[in-house]
Amino acid sequence: MLPPIRVAITGAAGNIGYSLLWRIADGSCFGPDQPVILHLLEVPGALERLEGVVMEVVDSAMPLVQGIVATDNARTAFDGVNQAFLVGSRPRGPGMNRSDLVAANGPIFVGQGQALNEVAASDVRVIVVGNPCNTNCLIAQRNARDIPPERFTAMMRLDHNRAAGQLAQRAGVPVSQVSGVAIWGNHADTMYPDVTRATVGGVAATERFEQEWLRGAFLDTVATRGAAIIKARGASSAASAASAAVDHMHDWWFGTNGGVVSMALPSRGQYGVPEGLVFSFPCRVGSGGAVEVIEGWPVDAFCQSKIDQNVAALLAEREAVADLV
Amino acid sequence: MLPPIRVAITGAAGNIGYSLLWRIADGSCFGPDQPVILHLLEVPGALERLEGVVMEVVDSAMPLVQGIVATDNARTAFDGVNQAFLVGSRPRGPGMNRSDLVAANGPIFVGQGQALNEVAASDVRVIVVGNPCNTNCLIAQRNARDIPPERFTAMMRLDHNRAAGQLAQRAGVPVSQVSGVAIWGNHADTMYPDVTRATVGGVAATERFEQEWLRGAFLDTVATRGAAIIKARGASSAASAASAAVDHMHDWWFGTNGGVVSMALPSRGQYGVPEGLVFSFPCRVGSGGAVEVIEGWPVDAFCQSKIDQNVAALLAEREAVADLV
Repeated sequence: MLPPIRVAITGAAGNIGYSLLWRIADGSCFGPDQPVILHLLEVPGALERLEGVVMEVVDSAMPLVQGIVATDNARTAFDGVNQAFLVGSRPRGPGMNRSDLVAANGPIFVGQGQALNEVAASDVRVIVVGNPCNTNCLIAQRNARDIPPERFTAMMRLDHNRAAGQLAQRAGVPVSQVSGVAIWGNHADTMYPDVTRATVGGVAATERFEQEWLRGAFLDTVATRGAAIIKARGASSAASAASAAVDHMHDWWFGTNGGVVSMALPSRGQYGVPEGLVFSFPCRVGSGGAVEVIEGWPVDAFCQSKIDQNVAALLAEREAVADLV
Repeated sequence: MLPPIRVAITGAAGNIGYSLLWRIADGSCFGPDQPVILHLLEVPGALERLEGVVMEVVDSAMPLVQGIVATDNARTAFDGVNQAFLVGSRPRGPGMNRSDLVAANGPIFVGQGQALNEVAASDVRVIVVGNPCNTNCLIAQRNARDIPPERFTAMMRLDHNRAAGQLAQRAGVPVSQVSGVAIWGNHADTMYPDVTRATVGGVAATERFEQEWLRGAFLDTVATRGAAIIKARGASSAASAASAAVDHMHDWWFGTNGGVVSMALPSRGQYGVPEGLVFSFPCRVGSGGAVEVIEGWPVDAFCQSKIDQNVAALLAEREAVADLV
């Protein structure tokens, strides 16, 4: 048995948390030989619900779970953690627009960034799932000045997986036959699922599918998928979001073996994206966990216009929280 | 890649189903190299919700998922299936007692047993999770006359895992250090968690803990855990129930390597339990998937009284559905 790692999950009593905990505890994320100590954070009003979730984790008798910390204090939650899933965020209330949402979440991620900076393990890696995740990630990262910026990422994997799923469905093949999808930009309906280098069953997606579909219904389906799920299920996508977070952290932990994944991380100016914006690029991850933005990806005029649109949106979000970053 | 197996889940859009699907799809149940085709059954009124769940499974781009069938027709759902999780059942409504519940569920499991008998694969294995699971299992089994009775089991693993979890918590050790727990009887508050042969950190549970606790608070906590979860979470235990179903089918698939598990299955008269009753015994599973009731387990007077109590309860349930079995 390896020594346990400490894994923080915020919003742990929420719907995504409820799906995520068991996927972490069953080894899907960090492997079947890696024990974990779960550090669960909730707001005070959800602590009783969190206690119920903890009871269920205990009741699941999962051999990789070596301990559980449940708290409403961020410093306790992040103490010594190696991996942090920042899932909890203020949801959009009635009449709130996106900039209201950005502003409402700002203070949460200021506090969490500061707490991570003070007490997390020196190797901590962070995924922000709570929306607006790119700008929430930016805020946390800018308030954790002693942690290397590249340890902060935001989740684009749900868009990435949705795009792969749509290509597989359209082709009528299992999704295991899809590779090379990349998402550019912000986790919002402006994000751009790019199939320039994607293959489906060994055939280039750009040859297999018509451009009209790729730039039309395919984009629309991926961009509006969250609303379609809510309409059908009567509840937002929780298990698929948790699954995407697992995939993101799994691939960061184990590497992508040359494969392309989509991760949002602080830009170093690649592809003209302003430095510091938390932006999704096509990435690969080396076996040591170094995330590399893939350079030299072909960017046509359509893709460039999408990148520009996402940059503009993220600059506006950054502007709305300028005093926090 | 192995050829895919077909896995049926009934009540697939319900809360347990929503936790279960991703645990099956991620390899927790049948291993990381075993592809699956998911066969999802729901009542007509839940088909739209099921469609939302299917969308989310597609959106999770899980490489082991080779196909999905979603239907409200049991024959379609069970066509060619190798593994069946019968999760869906009529919940207890206001004013219903246990025998009302048994009667309300009877016709569902008559139909599902008949459908399994007609169209399932010749190697089908069944776990019944939907309550009252022992008698629901009995009904399904008795209506599937061409399937060997030992292919029908009911889930006691949640009680088993809860008992293991309580022992671990009491001792302050990870649950991976607990073994040898066994549950006798019916999945109801009469079930008996037996620690006669359990060890915790290598020490006999009967030496480590006082009999007063083992026959008092320990029993009560395990028996009333479901209600305690509902009180804390505001919702019934779904993820831990799904996790127990995964453990049950995992161990049936891979074997228990000599370890003890609790499974309810049609009695062959072991320990004086009337033949045919679906009763939980201490079991082990060989590498070929043969479930063996462990003979010669020490049964003291306390345990015998608990066995008798569960036999009486299950005989009464069988009596209530006598025309269906």
